[in-house]
Amino acid sequence: MTLAMWSYRLRKTPMFALVLPIGLLVVLFWVFFSKEESLLGLEGSSIATHKWAHENEKTFYFPYARKFKNAKYSYKKKSNWLFSDTVEDNIPAGHITHFDLNKLESTANAAVNKEQVLILTPMQTFHEEYWSNLLQMTYPRELVELGFIIPRTKSGDNALRKLETAVKQVQVGKKEQRFAKITILRQDSQSFDSLLEKERHALKVQKERRAAMALARNELLFSTIGPHTAWILWMDADIIETPPTVIQDMTAHDKAILAANVYQRYEDDKTGTKQIRAYDFNNWAESDIALQMAANMADDEVIFEGYSDIATYRPLMAYQYDANGAANTETKLDGVGGGCTLVKAEVHRDGAMFPSFPFYHLIETEGFAKMAKRLGYEVFGLPNYLVYHIEEHN
Amino acid sequence: MTLAMWSYRLRKTPMFALVLPIGLLVVLFWVFFSKEESLLGLEGSSIATHKWAHENEKTFYFPYARKFKNAKYSYKKKSNWLFSDTVEDNIPAGHITHFDLNKLESTANAAVNKEQVLILTPMQTFHEEYWSNLLQMTYPRELVELGFIIPRTKSGDNALRKLETAVKQVQVGKKEQRFAKITILRQDSQSFDSLLEKERHALKVQKERRAAMALARNELLFSTIGPHTAWILWMDADIIETPPTVIQDMTAHDKAILAANVYQRYEDDKTGTKQIRAYDFNNWAESDIALQMAANMADDEVIFEGYSDIATYRPLMAYQYDANGAANTETKLDGVGGGCTLVKAEVHRDGAMFPSFPFYHLIETEGFAKMAKRLGYEVFGLPNYLVYHIEEHN
Repeated sequence: MTLAMWSYRLRKTPMFALVLPIGLLVVLFWVFFSKEESLLGLEGSSIATHKWAHENEKTFYFPYARKFKNAKYSYKKKSNWLFSDTVEDNIPAGHITHFDLNKLESTANAAVNKEQVLILTPMQTFHEEYWSNLLQMTYPRELVELGFIIPRTKSGDNALRKLETAVKQVQVGKKEQRFAKITILRQDSQSFDSLLEKERHALKVQKERRAAMALARNELLFSTIGPHTAWILWMDADIIETPPTVIQDMTAHDKAILAANVYQRYEDDKTGTKQIRAYDFNNWAESDIALQMAANMADDEVIFEGYSDIATYRPLMAYQYDANGAANTETKLDGVGGGCTLVKAEVHRDGAMFPSFPFYHLIETEGFAKMAKRLGYEVFGLPNYLVYHIEEHN
Repeated sequence: MTLAMWSYRLRKTPMFALVLPIGLLVVLFWVFFSKEESLLGLEGSSIATHKWAHENEKTFYFPYARKFKNAKYSYKKKSNWLFSDTVEDNIPAGHITHFDLNKLESTANAAVNKEQVLILTPMQTFHEEYWSNLLQMTYPRELVELGFIIPRTKSGDNALRKLETAVKQVQVGKKEQRFAKITILRQDSQSFDSLLEKERHALKVQKERRAAMALARNELLFSTIGPHTAWILWMDADIIETPPTVIQDMTAHDKAILAANVYQRYEDDKTGTKQIRAYDFNNWAESDIALQMAANMADDEVIFEGYSDIATYRPLMAYQYDANGAANTETKLDGVGGGCTLVKAEVHRDGAMFPSFPFYHLIETEGFAKMAKRLGYEVFGLPNYLVYHIEEHN
């Protein structure tokens, strides 16, 4: 349309001059309000510029939902925001966001109550199977935040690259399939990745390794837990198979701390058949013998479970699995592993963390369970509820 | 202007029909972009509706700066955002926010390096003097976040009302005078306010009181510390006088944990003159006698400092004040109080929290110092750097 035509039209239909600006107004409203998240706060620079910048940093944030960040109300209702010149004074930029923790309690009916779950994973290796297992979980993703901590090592760099790729794929996908928030931290303290898989379980290096892991878990926990977090699911990076309803199933028990039983699928060398075997021996109940051992130990000594040279005679949940038993059978525990363990956020908020030093002769997740008990919480496990650790190939 | 006049004008100056929508466009741009924070995410309901809603909730958020929340870049640069229909796909709402922790290290030059400081205060009484002291601090407020936890008691309700009023006044004021974020929590666990001021220090109730205080500190800490936090300043609600440069002064020492010396101004009954006296006896170095006492104690017994019936002979920082000494004199400590104590965020992130149970026969802030030492950090105090506790009137 040329200028001449505009002139002509306007001469003929002057009302058009009113319709045009109003139409523009409507279009602009639509553009601004429907796209608010993509228009605000962006510097406009491409990710390519920053892609390798993580060498210099420790922390990444992939937030999605603004639900828990946005103001729900302002101090004063704005009566006429468009043309009032007092708007600046009346609507504070420092608004209130309001966490109604009645809706955010940790209850047996987590999904229905829209309880926010934070899945925390210290990651030294990125397994595709871990990620695809995570993606098949059916708990509403808008209620799920993810947190990772990755050691500052070569294999950590590798894991970070793969994790970033996987994260991007989900977070740029369909809106309803995105996680509420994803935080990736590079480890600040000592690496927990200095040992090869095969030697990782050697007793002599356990203390050092698990102390480093405890620091990593604490860094991750303190950096990601928020006032809106209702549950924390500790899930190790080598857990590659859980029921899709693992969060619903475990929250339904309504326990302060609840550990699933970590098993491993493997191929029997002789028969060539697929079998399962117990994997994580950190889920245990206390025994008199172990308590007596502890009483005679020097302050800085630690008892590790699952080593034949330390016979604690502690009842291990790993051996209590009954293929014919009910999946929701509960058993009381005193020590837990971090394989797949659900914790009410209040337990951590009260101060329960992962001691990297001997705490009642226990460290890391086992020390955490002890600390939670000192804080007055009970610890449970699900012997018949299996999740699977990846098979280690030598 | 009547419709007839519009018609007339448009007939005479058809160009006006183009200027009008463009002008509107400019106005709208200005309105939307200059007011983004006040227009987005607001439900539009008045605070009056919600004012008393805190009875049902535990958490309030008064964020201001979006700096640490906003995306700095998107995955793909949007080439033509206004009319492209592929914008929705290209600009993920789940963007990356990028914490460059190189700028966020805890260093001796905190303000210049723009290090984020989180001031945490458990508050059972709101003192005007506390607030006005806070406001006179000269550390840039855009770098200061505040966190409060208030017990769920009558006096807590009262403190909350006063605190809310004070907070609003600052956060609706001039933009550059607002704090980066203010979080107010209602205590979830047991109240720390069940005791009157006079009986608060009675030895027999100390254990219970300080255990409750430890839980409050942990709740506050876990809910407010973020990946961007560089320093945490624990400041009790009854600290009413600090140097305006307290944050700069204390961060300049570059210590993992650093306690100021808490004194009290009082009027001498006899002479009527203003005097000062030592107030907080929780800042101490370890003594052989105290260690020996601890060794002979049952696991659950606790040593409290500052009671004549427990003679620990620990050197107390409270008595090391030298009016003629340099304000930056440092002394090594083993136990600290929470009066005015600066902590590098990494100490907490590594797991140091406030044990509500006996930890090496210590609890709360003193147990925290012990835990930090177990994590490999050193603890210092500033005997000649005084801050003042409010005078208690009976």
